Amino acid sequence: MDVSVSEDGGILTLATQQNTIRFHAIWLRDNSPDPDTKSSGNGQRLIALRDIPKDIRISNVQADGGSLDITFAPEEKTASFDLGWLVENAYDIGSNQGNGWLSDEVTKWDSTLQSSVPSAKLSDLAQRGDIYSDWIEKIARYGFGKVEGGPVSEGALFDVVDLFGFVRETNYGKLFEVRTEVNPTNLAFTGLGLQAHTDNPYRDPVPTIQVLYCLESSAAGGENMVVDGFACALRLKEESPEHFDVLSEYCARFEYAGEDGVCLTSKRPLIELAPDGELIGVRFNNRSLSAVTDVPFENMGLWYEAYRRLGEIIDDPAMEVVFRLEPGEAFIVDNTRVLHARKAYSGTGKRWLQGCYADKDGLLSTRNALRRKAGKGAK
Amino acid sequence: MDVSVSEDGGILTLATQQNTIRFHAIWLRDNSPDPDTKSSGNGQRLIALRDIPKDIRISNVQADGGSLDITFAPEEKTASFDLGWLVENAYDIGSNQGNGWLSDEVTKWDSTLQSSVPSAKLSDLAQRGDIYSDWIEKIARYGFGKVEGGPVSEGALFDVVDLFGFVRETNYGKLFEVRTEVNPTNLAFTGLGLQAHTDNPYRDPVPTIQVLYCLESSAAGGENMVVDGFACALRLKEESPEHFDVLSEYCARFEYAGEDGVCLTSKRPLIELAPDGELIGVRFNNRSLSAVTDVPFENMGLWYEAYRRLGEIIDDPAMEVVFRLEPGEAFIVDNTRVLHARKAYSGTGKRWLQGCYADKDGLLSTRNALRRKAGKGAK
Repeated sequence: MDVSVSEDGGILTLATQQNTIRFHAIWLRDNSPDPDTKSSGNGQRLIALRDIPKDIRISNVQADGGSLDITFAPEEKTASFDLGWLVENAYDIGSNQGNGWLSDEVTKWDSTLQSSVPSAKLSDLAQRGDIYSDWIEKIARYGFGKVEGGPVSEGALFDVVDLFGFVRETNYGKLFEVRTEVNPTNLAFTGLGLQAHTDNPYRDPVPTIQVLYCLESSAAGGENMVVDGFACALRLKEESPEHFDVLSEYCARFEYAGEDGVCLTSKRPLIELAPDGELIGVRFNNRSLSAVTDVPFENMGLWYEAYRRLGEIIDDPAMEVVFRLEPGEAFIVDNTRVLHARKAYSGTGKRWLQGCYADKDGLLSTRNALRRKAGKGAK
Repeated sequence: MDVSVSEDGGILTLATQQNTIRFHAIWLRDNSPDPDTKSSGNGQRLIALRDIPKDIRISNVQADGGSLDITFAPEEKTASFDLGWLVENAYDIGSNQGNGWLSDEVTKWDSTLQSSVPSAKLSDLAQRGDIYSDWIEKIARYGFGKVEGGPVSEGALFDVVDLFGFVRETNYGKLFEVRTEVNPTNLAFTGLGLQAHTDNPYRDPVPTIQVLYCLESSAAGGENMVVDGFACALRLKEESPEHFDVLSEYCARFEYAGEDGVCLTSKRPLIELAPDGELIGVRFNNRSLSAVTDVPFENMGLWYEAYRRLGEIIDDPAMEVVFRLEPGEAFIVDNTRVLHARKAYSGTGKRWLQGCYADKDGLLSTRNALRRKAGKGAK
């Protein structure tokens, strides 16, 4: 590897046979791994950018095996950078992936996932061994999975949440009951089928995880199904980029005001992209979409066309995984991505689920920590 | 008012002396207020877009006082729309506000807010009367406020959260203690001053509300200060639009891995815009910013320039409100917007705060519901 520094000390260049990567002096100094910059205990940065001189520059570099000792002026501070770390964190990679790209931590899926739904027994998961690590990885990757063989007892869904995170309490309580009621105030409690949807898009931040746990299921029908919203959005994009674009470029509005003292509203797009175009969220819920007023007149026709087509893709059986939850079974969805639905069920017999919300930060943190422990490193 | 329908039945036009607003037939039908479309109980939509014919059109319109009776073909369905509602929800308004605009529900502020910090006694707030409504409105508008005269007892911060929402439990617990410790694993627990920051930017979704409640404060120094991140971002934009743009167009990365089993990571911009350019979030935390790798080499120098300048603006005393929390007092910040900091304090005496996270959905829902109750309508 060739190591060189620009004349003004502003840029470090590492040239290998494969490629050339450059780093700014300020970036290197801000990410310096020395114990005065980063806490050796928890990795937190001990200085602020204001503590780094504006005219920071590289005055010397010395290769030392797998490390680079870089000296910064005017501080005359030397820190040792791991070469592997530099290559891993290189930003001089000139990629522009356009809109709608997926993180390599995510795999999109359709109905062919039916035969390999991530699933494990609650007792096995509770061991926190390989089955657990594998299940956590898959829940994160597919945004969906099942738990089997749990107790048929109220509140058992919290045992599922305990596997990776914390309940997000809302106005619906720590948990909510899903069963037939005579005077439903919420459509989720009737016997009708529901179109696949994400929950609570009228909430910002939206609950990023949902758990639904079955306690009773003697009614015919009422199967659950799930659909990968990312796969649907990308199919829409493939069919018609302008449909994908219009749903990501304009915000929809959602509202729920079904209880006294509650009036939840949000303004977010159906398809959410990060500033760099990464596909990071889907919101879809016909029941709580309120009047969409942020799409200009000129684009409203196209927006509705795209919304209709996205709904058709979501309804396509080729996209859905269908399963029946038995008592003591639960499913988990990434509610920023995976839509869930219930098919209609008959009036005879009963169906009783308990549901709750949680957040993805705990799930992904658990995954990352398990990887680090296994020596695989967090991404 | 002149009411007309396009020849193909696709567009309704309302013309007043002031302006002309148009609505698409599909938009009107989807938002039809009739009880078969929208639940009269909770306002949820009872149909999906798939239930509306693709060739929906307006076959007749009849003005009837403050209402418009619109008949849709081919359904031959007539629904009565409130004219005021239509004007309020008009989307044919041709506005393009560019990047960095603020909702009219938000007022930015600087150090001049010092003399009028939204503040109320806990006992008054608990009455849920006008003082409470006014305080909720202001917390939502300024993203910051105080509570005074609360009990000096552990867990009293939950009484503050109960005023508007629910605690977001995290790996730090339902609440966390902030006091001097000998071997801190987190900088928040030392006696050092901290640069103004938002909390937990490494968490996604970030906790959108933070409450800090004082139980003991006998140490000299240790004042709290808050800074409006929106005001800082907009000052940056005014000084240099390209600085504002580069911080909103590229993602930063944040990380916290200070405890066993925890490795929280996120990828979000320092300045977050909605797809329509609305300024909706600021993340700023020197301690947990990890290596920024999503900014291309060509823009990394500019990104660091902008990050530095944003930090300087945040540090400018002209932007900050400083106050001292006494035992039984608390402050609340909108953690998507308002940065908070602590000045250094001396080693003699003690300082003990309890903190917790909550979410804005409950705060804004409470505000909207109070408005509706008062007949002012939610926005």
